[in-house]
This record gives sequence, structure tokens and C-alpha cells, in this order.
Amino acid sequence: MMDISLVGTGGMMPLPNRYLTSLLCRYNGRMLLIDCGEGTQVSMKLLGWGYKNIDCICFTHYHADHISGLPGLLLTMSNSGREEELTLIGPPELARIAAGLLVIAPELAFPIKMVELPVKPHADLRIPLTEFYVSALPLDHGRPCFAYSIETRRGAKFDLERAEGLNLPKKFWGALQRGESVCHEGADYTPEMVLGPPRKGFKVCYCTDTRPVRTLPGFIENADLFVCEGMYGDPEKTATAREHMHMVYADAAAIARDGNARALWLTHYSPAMPNPKEHLYVARNIFRESCAAYDRITRTLIFEDE
Amino acid sequence: MMDISLVGTGGMMPLPNRYLTSLLCRYNGRMLLIDCGEGTQVSMKLLGWGYKNIDCICFTHYHADHISGLPGLLLTMSNSGREEELTLIGPPELARIAAGLLVIAPELAFPIKMVELPVKPHADLRIPLTEFYVSALPLDHGRPCFAYSIETRRGAKFDLERAEGLNLPKKFWGALQRGESVCHEGADYTPEMVLGPPRKGFKVCYCTDTRPVRTLPGFIENADLFVCEGMYGDPEKTATAREHMHMVYADAAAIARDGNARALWLTHYSPAMPNPKEHLYVARNIFRESCAAYDRITRTLIFEDE
Repeated sequence: MMDISLVGTGGMMPLPNRYLTSLLCRYNGRMLLIDCGEGTQVSMKLLGWGYKNIDCICFTHYHADHISGLPGLLLTMSNSGREEELTLIGPPELARIAAGLLVIAPELAFPIKMVELPVKPHADLRIPLTEFYVSALPLDHGRPCFAYSIETRRGAKFDLERAEGLNLPKKFWGALQRGESVCHEGADYTPEMVLGPPRKGFKVCYCTDTRPVRTLPGFIENADLFVCEGMYGDPEKTATAREHMHMVYADAAAIARDGNARALWLTHYSPAMPNPKEHLYVARNIFRESCAAYDRITRTLIFEDE
Repeated sequence: MMDISLVGTGGMMPLPNRYLTSLLCRYNGRMLLIDCGEGTQVSMKLLGWGYKNIDCICFTHYHADHISGLPGLLLTMSNSGREEELTLIGPPELARIAAGLLVIAPELAFPIKMVELPVKPHADLRIPLTEFYVSALPLDHGRPCFAYSIETRRGAKFDLERAEGLNLPKKFWGALQRGESVCHEGADYTPEMVLGPPRKGFKVCYCTDTRPVRTLPGFIENADLFVCEGMYGDPEKTATAREHMHMVYADAAAIARDGNARALWLTHYSPAMPNPKEHLYVARNIFRESCAAYDRITRTLIFEDE
């Protein structure tokens, strides 16, 4: 299973009871964070998942509300005893931006590896120490900005009955399970002989800040959860959203629908929108499984056959 | 009158309900802030004094918990319509540190003037746009770090009766009130002829992070309010405080007593100290007007003759 928590749901500036938008994914005890604005570590304290096992932080872009919490979080991770390398991923200029912010965190207890993504689609970057695979899609926000897809894989089920029927010594089973073929006493044995059909892993997608992009529905296709900005709920703010290169609820819901997502969490609300639920009906009319997310909303994704 | 609010009272890391230590002073509608950690702007939102009229931010030093909130606060000030120059004051390297942090706030609507203080005592720096005078005293924290004294002045009272007795035309009274001498029809008139004795202004002192310093009681002498770190309350933490170059409550209270302060607010509590009131008795036994301050504790200082 995989735990997902939207650590904050605000845009532009942190507010009392509305931290800046940031998503935390936990799988097999390891964590991946997307975006880290001012106060993210405070909301994480309330969440209670700890800091030490964050192995990767992905940045959509470098507006302050998406990265200003980085030095504080890294210092808290350092004080939590982390020593393993941390991976940072983001658009071009990550090294310059991080070097600027880290002037106030010069002595961390762990090394940092930076992965600066050129502005083009990326697929299946395996994150060290974890079983997360990260893909990224360029967005439309007036500066380099990425949507992220976080996926976990799952091996096919080993069919014990079929394996026993092969009369192949048990010491070779592991190889078959790992997807390797085996030659024993002149006969060939292939993984397909003992493995069931591929099993679905998890796919969680995160998209902010941007105008709607034609490639988004394909990128998020069949996601278990699609976390998407809804800077404005009111359809009358459509022109404002366009002007500031953001989206309204209806834009996010249409992408969720077109991409066949299972569920949509709206987030990155304008500070001028005190009640994000007020216009939720607009999204629901387009995509029924829309939710006006709130700080630390949490979901545990379960394997289909669990 | 002068309003004082301790925006946060935490040390090291921001916690839910305990923002990082930061002091806001308001006098005649203009504001001065000392230190700005992650989340300071959120606590200021709860305080409700606005952002636009902050004319000066003083930094004690550049550990992250004292400056990590700077880029976010400046962006919020910019979004609040501020256009006047902002003064930043701090120990050496202010320009380098601020330049690093401001990589994520490259387009502010107002200019910034930086005043880098050499590590020595400073007195009576007048802050533009305001009536604040700032003095600074080097501390002992293993790196350049200053205590600050924020003062306001008050002119002597104009004695109407004595002025009328002079038979000096009213058009000259303003000059006398401003402290200038006047020569009229061969006679000399001096300010002393119409002004009462000097009147006391306000003095608020702020001291964190440091070991006790011999010059501190003199620096804070007769302060209306002394805001001082009490990283640890428990006297058994005295050795720990020494090791980390911090103070215990008893150290702060002794400085308040020796400097004849009117009141002491303890702050900058260790995250490991959930109940700062627990050891308040230790401070009170040394200095009776000790208070275990909490976030957004506020006091209005009133002129003695108001």
C-alpha cells in the first residue's frame, strides 16, 4: 500500500491553517515530497510521518511558495539524524536556486544529489533508496514548470502450483520470479511459466502551477489520484486564471475526466478564496470524484488484490 | 504609545502553535521587525498589523531559524502594495545571505537598503521613514550576532504659559520648540525658556542567541521591556546551554535584574521544552517581572504622562 498526504493546500502565501501546497508520498517506509513552501515542515510535524526518511524532493518550479521551506526542512532532517543522500529534482537552475537558499544551511549531515531536468517530458526516473519512479511533463506557467507522476511497480504474482508442476528444483524459482529465464537439464524455463499477469502498481499525479496543457490527460492517464491546482473555483475567475497562468476548478476537472483519473484533489487555492468547497459543484459536474482538498488530507492506496 | 508583539517564541524549528522568535514594534503607524524565521509572516497574519508598513528588519544573526522567512515576507509585503525602500540591518555578510535567499524573490516592488554592521557596538542608527533609533551590541554565539535596542525619543513639553510671558511673537515659537534659539528686537530667546525637562521615550531590547555577555546589563539599562532568549528553563540544562552557546532562564533573569529592566519576556524556547511556564519560577526568583512569553503576546507602552 501507499500513503498519500497533501501537506498543504495554499497558493502564493502560507495562511493560518492553510500551508503551502506540497504532496508527501510514503511507500515501504520511504518518502518522496513534491514542493516545499514556507511552513511545509510545520504541517509535516502535525502529520507525524517524520522527516528522516524523505529520500527525494521534486520541485515543480521555483516560485517562492513552492520552495521557500527547503532550507528549514533540510535542517530539520539533518537534526533528525538523516545521513543518506537526498535527491532533489527540478527544472533547470535547480543548482543555482538551491545554492542560494542553502546559504543558511551550510552544514547538513547528508549529501545532496541534484537532478536538473531539461524542459522536455521525462519518464521513469528511479529514485535511489526507494521504489518510486518519477516522470515529469513540462507545463505552461511562463517559466519552466513540471507536472509529476509518481509510480510504484509491482511484480507479477508467483504461481506456486504451476511452479511445482514444472519439476524444476526450487533453487531456480527465484530467478524466474525476478524475470530471468533458466536452462536446466537441457530444458528452457521462462518467467511466464510461473508468473501471473502483470499487476497494477500505484500512480499519483501532481500538477501545479499551469494553464491547461494538451498533453496532461495522457500524462495522468488512469492515475489512482490526480492532485491538481484549482487556484480559483468561481467560473467568473476564468479570465483572471488565464491572466495569471493558473487554472479554475473546471479546467482541473476536465483534465481528470479526460485522463480517466480515479479521483481528483483540488489544491493551491488563492488566498482570496476562504472557502474552497463553495464552488466544488463546478468540478463535480464535470468529474464526479472531485474533492476540495484540505491540509493533511490523507489517503491510503491499496493493491487491488489486497 | 508604542505597540510591541512577540510574533513567535520558538527556537531551532517552527512548531505548530510556536512560530520562530521574532519581535514586531509599531510606533506612529510604522513598524520594525527583529528576526524573521520560517512562518513569521503566518503569525503576523494572525496578529493583524499588516505587512506594508514594515520599514526595517534587523537580524541578530544568520542561523536559519532567524532569517528563513525573509523571502516569503518580502513577497507578501510586495503583494501588499509596499513601494518605499526597506532597510535591512544585520551582522557582516548580510548582502551575501540576502542575495542567496532572494533568488526566489527577484522582482520585489520596493528597493532594499542593506546596512551591514561591523562587529562592534553601535548606537542610535536612525531608521528612515520611522522614529526608531536602533543600537546593537555584539553577543557571544560562536558567530557574529547582535542584541538590539529599539528606542523612540520624545521632545520636551512646550510650556504655553512661559511662552506667553516672553512677549515673543507666536511665529517664533515653532523655532524654540524645535530647539533653535531666536534673536528678536535685540533680545535672545533660547529653547530652555519655553521647554520643560526632557521626557522619557521608549526602550525595548531584544537578545538572542548568546551566552551571557558582561556588557548586556549596561546595554539594556532601564529598558521598558527586555525580550531575551530562555532556550532552556530547567537549571539542570545549564551545561547544555553552555555547550550550545545559549542561556537558561536564570541567565536571562539575572541580566534583566542587573540592567534594571521593567519587564522580561522569555523566548526562543527549545523544541524539546513543551511547557515554558514549568520553570518560570526560576526566573521569577531572580527577577520578579519575568514572563514566559507566548506567540503574539502584545504590550502597549504608554508615555508616563499620558
